[in-house]
Amino acid sequence: MTPKTTASSGTPSTRPAADPGTTRVRIAVGYDGSGFSGWARQPGRRTVQQTLEDALCRVLRLPEPPQLTVAGRTDAGVHARGQVAHVDLPAGPWAAAQDTAQRRLCGILPPDLRVHRVGAAPPGFDARFSALWRRYSYRVCDDPAWADPLRRHETLWYPHRLAVDDMNQAARACLGEHDFAAFCRRREGATTVRELLRLDWSRPDREDPTVAVATVVADAFCHNMVRALVGALLRVGDGTRPAGWPAQMLTAAERDPAVSVVAPHALCLEEVRYPPDDQLSQRALATRRVREARGTGG
Amino acid sequence: MTPKTTASSGTPSTRPAADPGTTRVRIAVGYDGSGFSGWARQPGRRTVQQTLEDALCRVLRLPEPPQLTVAGRTDAGVHARGQVAHVDLPAGPWAAAQDTAQRRLCGILPPDLRVHRVGAAPPGFDARFSALWRRYSYRVCDDPAWADPLRRHETLWYPHRLAVDDMNQAARACLGEHDFAAFCRRREGATTVRELLRLDWSRPDREDPTVAVATVVADAFCHNMVRALVGALLRVGDGTRPAGWPAQMLTAAERDPAVSVVAPHALCLEEVRYPPDDQLSQRALATRRVREARGTGG
Repeated sequence: MTPKTTASSGTPSTRPAADPGTTRVRIAVGYDGSGFSGWARQPGRRTVQQTLEDALCRVLRLPEPPQLTVAGRTDAGVHARGQVAHVDLPAGPWAAAQDTAQRRLCGILPPDLRVHRVGAAPPGFDARFSALWRRYSYRVCDDPAWADPLRRHETLWYPHRLAVDDMNQAARACLGEHDFAAFCRRREGATTVRELLRLDWSRPDREDPTVAVATVVADAFCHNMVRALVGALLRVGDGTRPAGWPAQMLTAAERDPAVSVVAPHALCLEEVRYPPDDQLSQRALATRRVREARGTGG
Repeated sequence: MTPKTTASSGTPSTRPAADPGTTRVRIAVGYDGSGFSGWARQPGRRTVQQTLEDALCRVLRLPEPPQLTVAGRTDAGVHARGQVAHVDLPAGPWAAAQDTAQRRLCGILPPDLRVHRVGAAPPGFDARFSALWRRYSYRVCDDPAWADPLRRHETLWYPHRLAVDDMNQAARACLGEHDFAAFCRRREGATTVRELLRLDWSRPDREDPTVAVATVVADAFCHNMVRALVGALLRVGDGTRPAGWPAQMLTAAERDPAVSVVAPHALCLEEVRYPPDDQLSQRALATRRVREARGTGG
């Protein structure tokens, strides 16, 4: 099992058609990102992709680790409760293992990575391209004197009180399809146009009113986008910037040095939503067309 | 700062009266118990008491660590969100430090131990003896396929589905004042009579119905009591034992080998409740009397 340095998903045009001798398998996973250098395989690093591919290799007794395609390529330190991936497995070994695969994978995986479900994917399913949207959460404690040490690995301790109403006002003005270049790390030739479907803050924990959580939903995210949006909104919440500031930066459509990217450990991929099974192929096709029209990002 | 092996609180009869040159200070703390060998100082071990006493010593520039008295002496691995302690500090150093003590303590304490509040205690306050009751929670995921890895350090992964209604029926029969010897590690000369005020289960997390949480309230707890009660109720919940079993064992008033003590990492001291300030002395006196009548435990 030599580490692979290739990305988990090719660009649309180079993706091969499904091999008839393989079964496409859908996998739902959750992980505590603290001990991983992110999702994507990197030589010499402990990553989620490598850990999971190696476990699949072992459970299915494959000659080499199969290659996963993932819905959300999380950065180092970022968590997931609702990550989704797919993998094309040789039909024979999969058929032999499918009934016990979930249990056996959980038996050999470390406790910070759990496979919730694994099973044959419906026709046309693509973990990355069939997705309608991704939902992330970002957890902030704005009164660190009362910070809960039990959840410190998934919560930002912010030293100023946050006005949730002001952050929500600022957030509303960012909704819709925009070029999020101001909030993204630019990649050569990649688009930064995304559709932001939801961005709001609440204090969901009755037992702990010091915790504010952002819910962020978009068709897809470019690199650093959630953490930069949250960084901008925190400056609104603590009164440093006016509520109109994040939307104003958006119109500039350029990376703004005034936007700080907040820490990864409070970010979690909560859910990836797919359309009904009979629309999976159509959705994958539509996504590819949109990405090509926007440029090769996402 | 040599480690002390003495207990954090003497027996009622040997406890010295407050020194007029000292100020009694009340401290509210929370900790992730994963990295601590419990509350109580032990030579060569990292404990909450030692870490906090050493930090107080440093912030107040005392010649040696002051001695804390705690409401709930948690075992190794057990967490606390609502722990309370008191300490008698020399009045001068305390007066000089009081305004900045909370912030400075949090500045030097490790992130798995937080001081939420520190201030002069009202007259008659005793963290241990003034308490009306202690409230613990015990968190169980009964569908480990869906276990959340982010909260694995505070959740028991139980391999069988639990019938919460059956556990609640069993729990109700244990309420009231009883000799909990069947559920306690016996200590020589110590009573195991306690008043169990609340014991029930619910699935409080709308987002995660695989998690059942026990709420356990008693005037005080003897050693292992919560974890043994939970262990008995889990056997009811998974259908191994009838709902009448825990109460039946209670009447035996002897340690029952059929009761397993569940793992500590899912147990958390959530709250310690005290009476209004004008009843603190009276309550401490009453508690001491009850303990003496029952025997010297608790």
